[in-house]
Amino acid sequence: VSAPLQSWVDGVSGAGLPADDRGLAYGDGLFETILVRNGTPRFLEAHLARLAAGCKRLGIATSVLPILRTEIAAAVSLAPPLGVLKIIVTRGSAMRRGYAADGAERPRRVLSIWGTEPLPAQTRSGVDLEVSSIVLGEQPALAGLKHLNRLEQVLAASQPRPAEVFDVLLRDASGHVVSGAMSNVFAVSSGALTTPPLDRAGVAGVLRGVVQRECKVLGLACAEQCLSLEQLIAADELFVTNARIGVVPVRRLGEHRFTMNRVALRLQAHVEALDA
Amino acid sequence: VSAPLQSWVDGVSGAGLPADDRGLAYGDGLFETILVRNGTPRFLEAHLARLAAGCKRLGIATSVLPILRTEIAAAVSLAPPLGVLKIIVTRGSAMRRGYAADGAERPRRVLSIWGTEPLPAQTRSGVDLEVSSIVLGEQPALAGLKHLNRLEQVLAASQPRPAEVFDVLLRDASGHVVSGAMSNVFAVSSGALTTPPLDRAGVAGVLRGVVQRECKVLGLACAEQCLSLEQLIAADELFVTNARIGVVPVRRLGEHRFTMNRVALRLQAHVEALDA
Repeated sequence: VSAPLQSWVDGVSGAGLPADDRGLAYGDGLFETILVRNGTPRFLEAHLARLAAGCKRLGIATSVLPILRTEIAAAVSLAPPLGVLKIIVTRGSAMRRGYAADGAERPRRVLSIWGTEPLPAQTRSGVDLEVSSIVLGEQPALAGLKHLNRLEQVLAASQPRPAEVFDVLLRDASGHVVSGAMSNVFAVSSGALTTPPLDRAGVAGVLRGVVQRECKVLGLACAEQCLSLEQLIAADELFVTNARIGVVPVRRLGEHRFTMNRVALRLQAHVEALDA
Repeated sequence: VSAPLQSWVDGVSGAGLPADDRGLAYGDGLFETILVRNGTPRFLEAHLARLAAGCKRLGIATSVLPILRTEIAAAVSLAPPLGVLKIIVTRGSAMRRGYAADGAERPRRVLSIWGTEPLPAQTRSGVDLEVSSIVLGEQPALAGLKHLNRLEQVLAASQPRPAEVFDVLLRDASGHVVSGAMSNVFAVSSGALTTPPLDRAGVAGVLRGVVQRECKVLGLACAEQCLSLEQLIAADELFVTNARIGVVPVRRLGEHRFTMNRVALRLQAHVEALDA
């Protein structure tokens, strides 16, 4: 059992969440998973910007953000050399029973610090993916958000699979690939990158945004484009991203083996070397 | 502000939920909302049967159910003459970080008692509905379950609307009506009832099941059938159901007024008179 090293609810270490919190009742909230490296929360501004944008879309008061910064600083000071800071912001305790938000709820902050291990060298050089049988539902009103309604990902990640499978790819009803259960996916063809749009399903990962931004720095083309499984398999390279793993090449997708990983490894090294 | 009168986490009154609970992190759990009338939890066996079926579908251990019965008995003994018992069962604390369930989690129980008021006579005689602009995503793997991923309902119920609108109807991408945000819907045409199937979206309400069962007792035909908004409007009668309100006729849907409510009021009285 790997429990969090420490957790805080509204700044109180070890506290529990009130039973009437809407984050528990309805998944009415958002979260961020931030890699902490030698006391620095990686890409913190991007994480907080996504959180703020999510709060705005869900109508959760962003007044929670300044105090969150203070609590993040305190939490990461207690993190091991390599750790993960998980932040949950919920709409807060229910003002009354029922789904409708009152608008006057006070958002609640839940922080936890977890230990983690460096990625094994073998994982860094390439991972295996399979395709999930779970077809993602489409909900434009929630797409892109890292909200707390994650049962589809739980189902997809919990289905039995061989131990060497790192993540499973999820498609939408049109057959387009959306993402992995815990990662975003990029294809590289003739040196140009593509990644699925996330306007109908999926989570707009912070590392996905970092890759999109750094492609400009590196002079790489990177476009959002609907991608079928066949198009992914026809690509020169494939890689996946998330906040903990950074950029990792895909070695195998189902039966197909990728032989190239040059762009992925270049981005992996570039992103790892970034300061923030 | 209307807070719960009392709440329990794993049987401990006033306790908080551990910050690493997967119900909070992912909405990884289920809930039941039970009307308590003069100390009796209405349709308790149906609620517990739905909860057990939901646990099985999500792979949550049903060993939680016997102790839940004991805790329900203790909770309802403290309820006011008319109250609501809310039960949440989560998969429990995370065994590790990430979406995948370990399989060895210990489910957690969160009970709360809320006060409620009898439905006003005007509501009992007929309510107004409007059609939501939120289109429900389709996820057969989760459809029918009363799980904790309820952001679509939160969005739908939180959109601005006139005070007299009791609930909003939600459609799927095919344009079929699924349900209200907080109710199931039935149409009555030439004395025969229809209600939407819930195999792609929606919650299979306990009161919906009660109506389906009691239709057999009363000799009323009741079938599951895909229904467009136009078909609802063309019906003789419309009514909505949920655990708190029972059966309530619809007086108005958007611009359309219903002039009949005979079958709905008959079912309302019949269901209210049931013992359990």
